[in-house]
Amino acid sequence: MTEKAAIGTPGRVERLALIGVGLIGSSIARAVRRGNLAGHIAGCTRSEASRDKCLELGIVDSAHLDPAECVAGADLVILCTHLGSYRQVVEAIRPALKPGAILSDVGSAKAFVLRDLTPLLPEGVHLVPGHPVSGTEHSGPAAGFAELFDDRWCILTPNGESDPAAVEQVAAFWRAIGSKIEIMEAEHHDLVLAVTSHLPHLIAYNIVGTASDLESVTRSEVTKYSAGGFRDFTRIAASDPEFWRDVFLNNKEAVLEVLGRFTEDLIALQRMIRWEQGDGLQDLFTRTRDVRRRIIAAGQETAAPDFGRRSGGED
Amino acid sequence: MTEKAAIGTPGRVERLALIGVGLIGSSIARAVRRGNLAGHIAGCTRSEASRDKCLELGIVDSAHLDPAECVAGADLVILCTHLGSYRQVVEAIRPALKPGAILSDVGSAKAFVLRDLTPLLPEGVHLVPGHPVSGTEHSGPAAGFAELFDDRWCILTPNGESDPAAVEQVAAFWRAIGSKIEIMEAEHHDLVLAVTSHLPHLIAYNIVGTASDLESVTRSEVTKYSAGGFRDFTRIAASDPEFWRDVFLNNKEAVLEVLGRFTEDLIALQRMIRWEQGDGLQDLFTRTRDVRRRIIAAGQETAAPDFGRRSGGED
Repeated sequence: MTEKAAIGTPGRVERLALIGVGLIGSSIARAVRRGNLAGHIAGCTRSEASRDKCLELGIVDSAHLDPAECVAGADLVILCTHLGSYRQVVEAIRPALKPGAILSDVGSAKAFVLRDLTPLLPEGVHLVPGHPVSGTEHSGPAAGFAELFDDRWCILTPNGESDPAAVEQVAAFWRAIGSKIEIMEAEHHDLVLAVTSHLPHLIAYNIVGTASDLESVTRSEVTKYSAGGFRDFTRIAASDPEFWRDVFLNNKEAVLEVLGRFTEDLIALQRMIRWEQGDGLQDLFTRTRDVRRRIIAAGQETAAPDFGRRSGGED
Repeated sequence: MTEKAAIGTPGRVERLALIGVGLIGSSIARAVRRGNLAGHIAGCTRSEASRDKCLELGIVDSAHLDPAECVAGADLVILCTHLGSYRQVVEAIRPALKPGAILSDVGSAKAFVLRDLTPLLPEGVHLVPGHPVSGTEHSGPAAGFAELFDDRWCILTPNGESDPAAVEQVAAFWRAIGSKIEIMEAEHHDLVLAVTSHLPHLIAYNIVGTASDLESVTRSEVTKYSAGGFRDFTRIAASDPEFWRDVFLNNKEAVLEVLGRFTEDLIALQRMIRWEQGDGLQDLFTRTRDVRRRIIAAGQETAAPDFGRRSGGED
């Protein structure tokens, strides 16, 4: 590492500690390496196998099983574990956090982070919750890649009590590893993500579950004809079960709110089918097509049909 | 065209008539051209613009606006229009169908085809309903391509009264353009497709509708953070509105049946979230992951994460 050369780079930290080195943690490590954005990267894993994997991949400078040991002397600590572990991790690391250290995270729910972790913080440690909106359906240290955050949004959710310099330091860090920054109220973040991510995953899990429970349609038939649309759902329903359990438990209110609306709309749609109200169906289907156009126009997706996969969702 | 050379090729027809030359119709035409599987391809379009487009693309030998004119002398007639037009089209072409002609289709619902069209058939014309399970979210004559059916399933749903020779002719035709054939009861087809295709589309349309109706989350936010899972749904919710209206109206019973089960399961899931039953959530999410594994194992999808799109559905 040519540490000296990079001192002064905006967003650079002297010592970075990553608690959890799965898809997101290992991608942060790789992106930090790519940009030479830390003097030392310490990673903490749950298992010895993961610890050895991280060292073998060369993505961290030191690998630990003890989170307190991992964060000792760190300027920036990022929680990259499942949401359900946060309290326990912070209770374990609090005596080891150095004064002035910044504690951040990458979790998909944000209000509970401020609510649960603020009371646990030692004096002089700054909490800046964060959420890079990117990922794949894969997990583990080997699944990460340095480009994961390039040109993607990273949302930070400080509150009125957050230290502005700490917020700017975290923002600069994410910019340095390729992200675009958005600052948002934690509650608003949780509602936006409930719609754009948590509800879609819940629905995908549910439809895959419903399909595998039908007695009259065999599993091999579901598999065989999955190209007609079902396949698109199985991809996101293949995401890490523990990760998603924690998302739903920690963003309960917002998820129940949007789920209630979804069900209401679905019942209305069901009624249109039962009463053969073709115009109503066509109106909705036309309106949703426009949403797709906006997403493509915003560069979040390409218009190319799914040729690479050799078929698609038309019928 | 080297017509003579190909005579005797299994599945080859002397004169093919395609009623409707959109994504599916034009892909059939291209695949037939590729294999030199017809002496003459006649195509019927709804508009003059489409007719001109077909001739310009060179995918048909003759293009018509009058379906009766299009089917005159045809050995195999394939309906490639929306399901809602079938009755009207068959009423228009019945006087022009030649004795011994085979009438088939590519629609996504099959029981209604046997029920509605059988009474309209002239003596000596054979009905063999079919459904190639492939497509993209695009439509129109220019969206088609010759490889659309390669190695994909085409389901035929004859009944006890169908002529075995006609069924074999249609099967041979689809095999010749690259498909694998499955023979199934029409009612069973409709249930299988309701699960693997119709319900996924309905859910996708619904969630995109729900998201665009939320007052507290802006459309630009939905667009911006769509990479977290929502985007996957917008692709299939961008499919042809008229096409899908007709699918739901013509496969009403099976769709309502699986939709009822889906809603029941979703309510149970909602209850697990409300009561914070983490184990129940994790059990479901683990089970659905296995379904994905089976689809990948069956060659219906690849395990590669969605790198091409630069992100995915993890959070």
